[in-house]
Amino acid sequence: MLLDQVRLPAVTAEVCCRDVPALAAAIRRLAVRGAPMLGIAGAYGVALAAYAGDDVAAAADMLASARPTAVNLAWGVRRALAAYQAAMRAAPPDGSRVLAAAAALAQARAIEAADAAASEAMAAHGLGLIGEHARILTHCNTGALVSGGQGTAFGVIMAAHRAGRLARLWVDETRPLLQGARLTAYEARQAGMPFQVLPDAAAASLLAAGEVDIVLVGADRIAADGSVANKVGTYGLAVLARHHQVPFVVVAPVSTIDFAAAGAGAIVVEHRPASEVTEIAGTPVAPAGSEAYNPAFDVTPARLVTALVTERGVTQPVNAGMLRVLGAESAVDDGALASIPVER
Amino acid sequence: MLLDQVRLPAVTAEVCCRDVPALAAAIRRLAVRGAPMLGIAGAYGVALAAYAGDDVAAAADMLASARPTAVNLAWGVRRALAAYQAAMRAAPPDGSRVLAAAAALAQARAIEAADAAASEAMAAHGLGLIGEHARILTHCNTGALVSGGQGTAFGVIMAAHRAGRLARLWVDETRPLLQGARLTAYEARQAGMPFQVLPDAAAASLLAAGEVDIVLVGADRIAADGSVANKVGTYGLAVLARHHQVPFVVVAPVSTIDFAAAGAGAIVVEHRPASEVTEIAGTPVAPAGSEAYNPAFDVTPARLVTALVTERGVTQPVNAGMLRVLGAESAVDDGALASIPVER
Repeated sequence: MLLDQVRLPAVTAEVCCRDVPALAAAIRRLAVRGAPMLGIAGAYGVALAAYAGDDVAAAADMLASARPTAVNLAWGVRRALAAYQAAMRAAPPDGSRVLAAAAALAQARAIEAADAAASEAMAAHGLGLIGEHARILTHCNTGALVSGGQGTAFGVIMAAHRAGRLARLWVDETRPLLQGARLTAYEARQAGMPFQVLPDAAAASLLAAGEVDIVLVGADRIAADGSVANKVGTYGLAVLARHHQVPFVVVAPVSTIDFAAAGAGAIVVEHRPASEVTEIAGTPVAPAGSEAYNPAFDVTPARLVTALVTERGVTQPVNAGMLRVLGAESAVDDGALASIPVER
Repeated sequence: MLLDQVRLPAVTAEVCCRDVPALAAAIRRLAVRGAPMLGIAGAYGVALAAYAGDDVAAAADMLASARPTAVNLAWGVRRALAAYQAAMRAAPPDGSRVLAAAAALAQARAIEAADAAASEAMAAHGLGLIGEHARILTHCNTGALVSGGQGTAFGVIMAAHRAGRLARLWVDETRPLLQGARLTAYEARQAGMPFQVLPDAAAASLLAAGEVDIVLVGADRIAADGSVANKVGTYGLAVLARHHQVPFVVVAPVSTIDFAAAGAGAIVVEHRPASEVTEIAGTPVAPAGSEAYNPAFDVTPARLVTALVTERGVTQPVNAGMLRVLGAESAVDDGALASIPVER
């Protein structure tokens, strides 16, 4: 059961994915989305395939390739598949499938729990960057809808709100799919935050007017050199923040760092259908047959990122050397996680 | 009769404004919009009031204050009112109203004809800035829908297209009211241009990818120091263009320069209702009761403007001294225009 994020906030509906093709379709149409949540959903998908007696490796391939940019999706799938395969090798032949499915499910639950814990840790570390009466600008949606916990950037914003430091949350509407207006505003409202939605293109004038103290965003994939792939519009915000000398901070768990991607060139940016731009809720807003440039993400170079907040702490400056240190620490933990997955 | 721009491209409908309050309402709800067209509509509105036997000065006030930012609106109204008042003073008492109304109408027609001529001159001057195989990015709508001729920035784009130099027109959709997706795409399609619509926030990645050779925009008001008020999002584009070393060019008639406004601080930026952001075509896209930051315009400082194209030529750099020269030339012409309004 997934909360259908495409229909929020107008309709609160659940999507029931009884098999892996249904889950992959839900991921493709963004009913479930957001980097950490994709990792969790991918891992649960592997467990689903294992319990259903499907070809688990094929199911893992289908899930991992449902969307190309968020590294967490492939990461979550790979972790659950590894747990499944290890259990298959270890268990007696006749009982192995059920035991292995249980191992995949345990791994999915561990990823979810770890994400909740990471979320809490990111919020605590990130809070140190937020002053009193802070006016925070954010883009896209990074809260509980995309996390096992309170989310990435939104987790920090929630911590600031709880600490009484949030004077105003500026919510970029985040065209074309309006994740800001639909989902972040929904979460902000539920939390009782003071917030205002704005057209993405109005952020520049807010920055010029000195109405923004810090920009906080999440990430879908971070390359080894610190290049940050995130929702389209993030890069422009980073340039504008730098122009106005406002800190631009990325909040993401270490699992978002893809050490196999050397830099921006190694990140595949998903291009989505023109209709997401030329139609709104099924109503055409451009002449019939208009083409559209509709990348889902853009890539921000590390030099424009003031700091990276992960569950380990605050990394500043963001560059290849600093990320290597983070990665090394994380590899040690990964070993620990493999042996005692549920307790992490 | 006005083409209702709110309903384009889905519906081609005309709005009939039989009196000045109806015209002022059409201006407020943006059925007629765009700086040059507002000047033309304002002048015709004064003629309408004069023929109807209304209090012409009061009608002029109502029209001039319908929207605060575009200087052309008040300018067109003032010109037609001056023609009306001069005719009232000159004519014999009994026939004076009809003659004065005719003078106001002649002035409105002169403004429309002058705008068409200015449009042609701007296109010719602007074309000199466009190279072969040009990929042009534009924002909002600046074509025939807002002009007595082919428009401002769009007039230059049209000239480039006719000269075989337009490889691609990138059309910012221009939230919240989608003037780019709805109107510029409509005009581009009618002209057979190769174009693609994009979310405003995707422009940064296009610039980063080297896919834009020049940014061309219009203006709603230019202060004496060269600060340019234009559709919200223009300022952010100017910062991004500078960051990527892409020329950022403003195309506007000299009548857009407001010498009474010393700088950005003297320009009143209109803030529009939250519902333009939180609803799309009547459908809520944000939680009920969400507030929104919805300025219609932003202000770009002169130092980010590579060049200003007017009907006089190309002004570069853009600064107070260069604009003073333009203003002085224009004042001479204005004198000529006052004596022979129809032939200009």
